[in-house]
Amino acid sequence: MFIIDFEPVGRRGECFEDQSLLDCARRLNVDLVSLCGGARTCGRCKIQLISGTLSQPTREERQFLSERELEQNFRLACQSFPQSNVKIYVPPASLTAPQRTQVEGLNLEVAPEPPFRNLEVQLNPPSLGSPESDDQNLWKALHARYGIAPGAIDLKVQQSLSPQLRNSNWSVRAALRDREIVALSARSTRWLGLAADIGTTKIAAYLLDMENGRTLGSKGLMNPQISYGEDVVSRIAAAGKSPENAAKLQALVVDALNEVTSQLCADIQADPSDIVEAVIVGNTAIHHLFLRLPVQQLGLSPYVPAIRSAVDIKARDLGLRIAPGGYVHLLPNIAGYVGADHVAMLLATRVDQYDGVTLAVDIGTNTEICLNSNGRMTSVSCASGPAFEGAHIKYGMRAAPGAIEHVRLSGEKMELQVIGGAPPVGICGSGFLDLVAQLRLANALDGSGRLVNHPLVHIQDGMREIVLVERPGSDAITISQKDVRELQLAKAAIRLGIRALVELEGLTEDKIERIFIAGAFGTFIDIESAIVIGMLPALPLERFQQVGNAAGTGARLALISQTMRAQARQIALRDRYIELACIPNFNRKFAEASLIDRGLTTATN
Amino acid sequence: MFIIDFEPVGRRGECFEDQSLLDCARRLNVDLVSLCGGARTCGRCKIQLISGTLSQPTREERQFLSERELEQNFRLACQSFPQSNVKIYVPPASLTAPQRTQVEGLNLEVAPEPPFRNLEVQLNPPSLGSPESDDQNLWKALHARYGIAPGAIDLKVQQSLSPQLRNSNWSVRAALRDREIVALSARSTRWLGLAADIGTTKIAAYLLDMENGRTLGSKGLMNPQISYGEDVVSRIAAAGKSPENAAKLQALVVDALNEVTSQLCADIQADPSDIVEAVIVGNTAIHHLFLRLPVQQLGLSPYVPAIRSAVDIKARDLGLRIAPGGYVHLLPNIAGYVGADHVAMLLATRVDQYDGVTLAVDIGTNTEICLNSNGRMTSVSCASGPAFEGAHIKYGMRAAPGAIEHVRLSGEKMELQVIGGAPPVGICGSGFLDLVAQLRLANALDGSGRLVNHPLVHIQDGMREIVLVERPGSDAITISQKDVRELQLAKAAIRLGIRALVELEGLTEDKIERIFIAGAFGTFIDIESAIVIGMLPALPLERFQQVGNAAGTGARLALISQTMRAQARQIALRDRYIELACIPNFNRKFAEASLIDRGLTTATN
Repeated sequence: MFIIDFEPVGRRGECFEDQSLLDCARRLNVDLVSLCGGARTCGRCKIQLISGTLSQPTREERQFLSERELEQNFRLACQSFPQSNVKIYVPPASLTAPQRTQVEGLNLEVAPEPPFRNLEVQLNPPSLGSPESDDQNLWKALHARYGIAPGAIDLKVQQSLSPQLRNSNWSVRAALRDREIVALSARSTRWLGLAADIGTTKIAAYLLDMENGRTLGSKGLMNPQISYGEDVVSRIAAAGKSPENAAKLQALVVDALNEVTSQLCADIQADPSDIVEAVIVGNTAIHHLFLRLPVQQLGLSPYVPAIRSAVDIKARDLGLRIAPGGYVHLLPNIAGYVGADHVAMLLATRVDQYDGVTLAVDIGTNTEICLNSNGRMTSVSCASGPAFEGAHIKYGMRAAPGAIEHVRLSGEKMELQVIGGAPPVGICGSGFLDLVAQLRLANALDGSGRLVNHPLVHIQDGMREIVLVERPGSDAITISQKDVRELQLAKAAIRLGIRALVELEGLTEDKIERIFIAGAFGTFIDIESAIVIGMLPALPLERFQQVGNAAGTGARLALISQTMRAQARQIALRDRYIELACIPNFNRKFAEASLIDRGLTTATN
Repeated sequence: MFIIDFEPVGRRGECFEDQSLLDCARRLNVDLVSLCGGARTCGRCKIQLISGTLSQPTREERQFLSERELEQNFRLACQSFPQSNVKIYVPPASLTAPQRTQVEGLNLEVAPEPPFRNLEVQLNPPSLGSPESDDQNLWKALHARYGIAPGAIDLKVQQSLSPQLRNSNWSVRAALRDREIVALSARSTRWLGLAADIGTTKIAAYLLDMENGRTLGSKGLMNPQISYGEDVVSRIAAAGKSPENAAKLQALVVDALNEVTSQLCADIQADPSDIVEAVIVGNTAIHHLFLRLPVQQLGLSPYVPAIRSAVDIKARDLGLRIAPGGYVHLLPNIAGYVGADHVAMLLATRVDQYDGVTLAVDIGTNTEICLNSNGRMTSVSCASGPAFEGAHIKYGMRAAPGAIEHVRLSGEKMELQVIGGAPPVGICGSGFLDLVAQLRLANALDGSGRLVNHPLVHIQDGMREIVLVERPGSDAITISQKDVRELQLAKAAIRLGIRALVELEGLTEDKIERIFIAGAFGTFIDIESAIVIGMLPALPLERFQQVGNAAGTGARLALISQTMRAQARQIALRDRYIELACIPNFNRKFAEASLIDRGLTTATN
């Protein structure tokens, strides 16, 4: 009997050598994806061996896993048996939704280099003979120990300085940012940082230790602005209607951030006032709404941002409750529809650092794509819409318990993976993608996206549809022709963006050497399904890397490292923006991009 | 017939050559002081000839005016007759109260050198082909015209940038402070500045043109904090009682400043948002209350300030309504009871620039004194109390209409100057000072301050008193022995402070080569009376200079000149503070200083 350690979910337990890791995972409530239920036919339960020994890979595994995956010790959990204590990494794509959030992303691999210095000093109490003022006493001690010349002290720190010195027995630590003391605390606390990726639909928040750069906690939540419109265009319109609306839109996000920050701090017995710096990323509209910048000009040609440069703002000026003197840093924007979140994604994936041809696609309600072709970086923005979040799809839903997240056709039998193992109530984006791909492979759908005569296709109220789940006493869960059309529009926008960038460089899609797929949705889709429906180009699977919430990772990198902030500024300067609507033959190309066809030619022009 | 121009009151009118300037002033409602009513006996109606010709000085004038005054074209208005069109300067001390406020002071004689640059640029509107963001468009234009590298933009300026550019046809002026754009406006406006001296009792506010340094308006008002205590000690106690009290004390001053700022702006058809910088001075407690700094430690030994250094704070952080991105600069403090107002006074009088022995006395509810003895500057603070404002005196009142402001004994007849020419209702500080001096000269009062047997001294309810004005059907206006004692305490504190500084340097008072008397009260007192009662040392009158609200002047200098701010920092570093209560033989010396005796020896130690 061996000890099995599942990371990063942090489950640990015993396993006999004749039990598969899938069995073990189930017993330990690690919600591994398994469409076939262990029948060795779906190839979805991918895990990675970190340490220890497993049984030899089977023939089926060699079939489902690429050469590179095998080299990297990827395995299928249903066919792996422990031969020692082992440590297992479960990639986000192999977890069902309850254990995956929009916060997961690449690990941070930079040395902490925070935007402030931590200074610890012991002061001499004043006396009638030496009635030193509290500020000069502090600067004197800082000069004596660190050689620092007197600078500024934030007003809120000034206001707490005198009692704080007296309560801490004249022994304190100060955070010096540029030449300003932005926080003061007792010697025993540590400085924290907050990173947040504010998406159109979801917010991911991270709490970090600013000294060692570790992520201490993270949480995902919905963006409450959604009550003012599900896409940025409708929110721009709402904010433009009245200053009260604009104020409300800002307050909604700030309140949500304050709430999640409180929770993250409570989880580690810390206080929000220990947070001395925050980095926020979001698309340009979200960025502008957060800063209460005007957004009207974002909605009108030539769609210019009010502010592109990175900015540092006192958190209190935005209502964000961290250390009273702390700053919020916002990464730079690139264009009206390519924002700071895109810069953060590029920072995290290091797209700018590669030679050759690299593509990064951040799929969301709005999808931003960047191509780095031998050093020339160009980005485009595509209005992919909220279909991937389940909106505008009759039985569509978000990736929540009860959502069908993966589908596989075995003959005419539907194999469904439902989040939380609950009875299905709808279908989320990744499931819908699988379904359409499986229908295309089964020829129930033609290349134009039309449901054809096929045993799986029924006609209901004059419209063709597919029944996913019959529910006695309730309506069946179905997908209609109209639903398929919604998906086609969404995926066409993405594919068109990829093609536009590639063609601008005089290349074809097959020249792309690596593709990063970012965003919560992008992380959990089946790349093969995305290729089958023509959303992504038909390239070898090894070229794809699903990187999770890369914008969140980028925000964390910028939070803990000044070098990363400088790099983000360089990225924003280097990256050229093109307007998708301005490309030649837009309509014809959009129609081509909407085909459900992996063979989509890239040569037409 | 000639044209007579009275400055700075700004009255202008005609005068025959056989009319005295006093007659002319009365006709034009210039409220010149005249105790004797033109009988040539009081010598109070001093004016200064700026241009034009007057009749030759009379024998009486030569008697009342010093050599230096005659050289400087000082005259008595009652004995001066025009021989051409003339321009006349009326010094504050020669105006009765309705035309004098606490705002008058020395003229500003420095070149404007504001803490920001005024930049005017024309931008190119963005287009689809060049979709420049508004911030980068602005920086590009600033770089092209002025070679300025991109810096920061205040959040509130960011928030107004986009509509402002579009409303002004892409033509704007910006105020760049350090590397931050703190204000943006249409090309047609001018940048204004606000200077304020917040006294314990009164506030003086000034509106300046930041480009040419001119004072555009000024107003005096009461400090509304007075409802929380008439001296700083009681306000410190009030603020210490609860955070609500402290917040209220701050809000009272800020509301008053916002109100007076609105009025000052309305007077010149400007808007408070045109004010891009403010300088505030006050004593250390006032300074701390204004910044919401803790004040408890000011009330406890060793009485240290929380903050001594000069600080720059966003006005909005204090609730001050000027340009949303504008800063408030506060001059440095020196000690717990020697504050930024003292530094401002020293800056305005240039005490630090003199060789030899120079003294500066800023008389107020708290009196600060500085001695510069051959380059060594030392200051002391004296709790002179509110007696000079009329408090704790039975018929005492502030210098307002109906107050007896000057008194002269002609035999046993009282000659009274009443503010506004109204029936007298009480006596203000300068009148009380005159009265006590006159009583001492008439031997109705002995050197210890005791009212003695004398035709002027009556006994009422067992206490000796002086009747100033009989009012049929109403109580007489009187001064009692108790009132005299109050004045003795107040003046003793000041005299003791002067002596302590002089003795610390091993000097005697007669070595003082020049004495600046600052503060509204100090400006309007009769120096001779102050010498007679032993409040000021018995030195030749030429050594005294009454400089009005020098703290207000210092605030204005620091507002318009960065060199002056640097000089203020130097003054605060150079000036050494001594604790009056710590001097040797304090009690004996205080008793000596309370004597009503111009011959007070300075040699005892």
